Amino acid sequence: MESCSLVDTAGAAALCSTPGGRRRGRAGSAARFFNCPGSSREHGVSASYSIGRMLSGVRSAARRKLFRSEPEWMGVNWPDSTGHHWWTTLENNFVLEASEDEYSGVVVDADRLPADGAAFARSLAASLSYWQSVGKKGVWLKLPVDRSEFVPIAVKEGFKYHHAEEAYLMLTYWIPDEPSLLPANASHQVGVGGFVINDQMEVLVVQEKYRGWALDGVWKLPTGFIQESEEIYTGAIREVQEETGVDTEFVDVVAFRHAHNVAFQKSDLFFICMLRPLSSAIKIDETEIQAAKWMPLEEFVKQPFIQEDHMFQKIMDICIQRLRKCYCGLTAHNVVSKFDGRQSTLYYNVGEPEDVNCDAA
Amino acid sequence: MESCSLVDTAGAAALCSTPGGRRRGRAGSAARFFNCPGSSREHGVSASYSIGRMLSGVRSAARRKLFRSEPEWMGVNWPDSTGHHWWTTLENNFVLEASEDEYSGVVVDADRLPADGAAFARSLAASLSYWQSVGKKGVWLKLPVDRSEFVPIAVKEGFKYHHAEEAYLMLTYWIPDEPSLLPANASHQVGVGGFVINDQMEVLVVQEKYRGWALDGVWKLPTGFIQESEEIYTGAIREVQEETGVDTEFVDVVAFRHAHNVAFQKSDLFFICMLRPLSSAIKIDETEIQAAKWMPLEEFVKQPFIQEDHMFQKIMDICIQRLRKCYCGLTAHNVVSKFDGRQSTLYYNVGEPEDVNCDAA
Repeated sequence: MESCSLVDTAGAAALCSTPGGRRRGRAGSAARFFNCPGSSREHGVSASYSIGRMLSGVRSAARRKLFRSEPEWMGVNWPDSTGHHWWTTLENNFVLEASEDEYSGVVVDADRLPADGAAFARSLAASLSYWQSVGKKGVWLKLPVDRSEFVPIAVKEGFKYHHAEEAYLMLTYWIPDEPSLLPANASHQVGVGGFVINDQMEVLVVQEKYRGWALDGVWKLPTGFIQESEEIYTGAIREVQEETGVDTEFVDVVAFRHAHNVAFQKSDLFFICMLRPLSSAIKIDETEIQAAKWMPLEEFVKQPFIQEDHMFQKIMDICIQRLRKCYCGLTAHNVVSKFDGRQSTLYYNVGEPEDVNCDAA
Repeated sequence: MESCSLVDTAGAAALCSTPGGRRRGRAGSAARFFNCPGSSREHGVSASYSIGRMLSGVRSAARRKLFRSEPEWMGVNWPDSTGHHWWTTLENNFVLEASEDEYSGVVVDADRLPADGAAFARSLAASLSYWQSVGKKGVWLKLPVDRSEFVPIAVKEGFKYHHAEEAYLMLTYWIPDEPSLLPANASHQVGVGGFVINDQMEVLVVQEKYRGWALDGVWKLPTGFIQESEEIYTGAIREVQEETGVDTEFVDVVAFRHAHNVAFQKSDLFFICMLRPLSSAIKIDETEIQAAKWMPLEEFVKQPFIQEDHMFQKIMDICIQRLRKCYCGLTAHNVVSKFDGRQSTLYYNVGEPEDVNCDAA
């Protein structure tokens, strides 16, 4: 694999479209390519500051806002407006601890939330009022699952669900009186399929345990979803190894398919990978695979199910053309961002077909 | 665009890994390629049944379970165990309305949840006990945002967050005493960049309004995130049109980049698309673009920022090779699933470079 020290445009890009960032699509675009190198990996938060720092210089505005209609706001007996005491009271008791991001956004500190629902409700209302008074835009509120009792409180305050992982629910609040520019959550799942063929022109195929009627008796390529933060090329190798026990090395991506409204109405990208076998002994994963074997390519392609399926025939055409070196696949090249040091992979061709007289797929 | 009636493997695949389905990665693989054509588009739910049908044949088992430690279970004065009345009571008052999926899973009907928290808590406990007694595995509980007060109740009952959209939070519960086989949520966001060059070898470039210091004065390609259910090729055309006002047509994907731990720790796939200009007049989107113009390719590539960035230099090399027809990009081909009729797009090469003596990228 070629390895160099490069800019990870995706990293920089997407980081900038995280908390407090911009909405997917149009606005999301501004966040891409060599953008905001200062972004942190964790939250896209570029700067953190104390509430004290946050208060400086904006006290009168905040005060006007906070007391506009509540002289004895939230039952607290505030001193006269010349005193410093009420700011200390606000700072110590009401405004949630938070960091700012590069888009005038606020990221609430999930580790320093109030102890109980009543305090949280009071702080959330005060904080929104305060953040609005100081010109903040997007608010990111991550509620750990063990604070789930805060969810209805945040929703009542006007927060919207953004995304969730097993450990937390992320909610957002867009303060300005204009369309939200906050980015959308993840939109795709990614799958891989491995085309593994040996010197005897036998393809590595499997029969699945959990299959619809249409797959009865059908031998297919090993396939699966890539795991969190997994590379396409390593995911394909892993799937083949797990399902069949055969070790392989990645050659290239020969094609990919894009479908929509799939799982949870999200989209699906599926990459067909050419893999070179490094071993031949088969040991199936019995939790999901019924059987696996090396099958003559001709026999594999002649299966009625495949004969009736133009898409799979096309994929097989491509794989066969690739075998004959009449087709350009995309090989993987590791690159590292000089901004955040994270690795990413650029997939592209490294050469034209060797036999140019052949009929490329 | 080639158009045929084909199997949408992604669609069938991912649908089978939805509610009640299998975990991402290994198990997820079983759900891919020509699998379970019977899956519904909405939830991957293949069959719906009434609680009455669900009860038949398993009453004694369920009863044993339900009354194991609660002779006067939940304060209800049940008749003796030979009577039918308590089943009617259970059916009418406690077990949540649900559908089953293809993996012995249960999908709770989000439109028929109990009216209040107390009733929900009671029904959830009773339902879990009941579903366990009848051998159910994964439980999918979608809570609309206007039922957010049910979230802490479900969490207390042992449900885990799975994913969230603005309108709802999806929670899951894996009943068997073994590792969960439920699929993961979406893992990727997808971005596009448009390389648009005219007959005078001028590239369409933009300067962004919201950019980090590193981008000051830098002219870059129009880029952005694709929108929900949007194609890569239409997303690239849209981004270019929105940012610059220039109409284009898609030629091919020349390369793509994969990065991890980006927005919300999800991964990012970024596709570089070659587009052919259909107009030249520039009209920028002032909400996010500072300026746009046609810039001589040579001048564009000579920008210090690009000169210092090997990755972008590689991308430009590829685009230039593609212009010289020395490079194979991946073109888009519409395909339709013969199972569910949904369209998907297969990206692959349609030919080898025309000039094989050139040095391909």
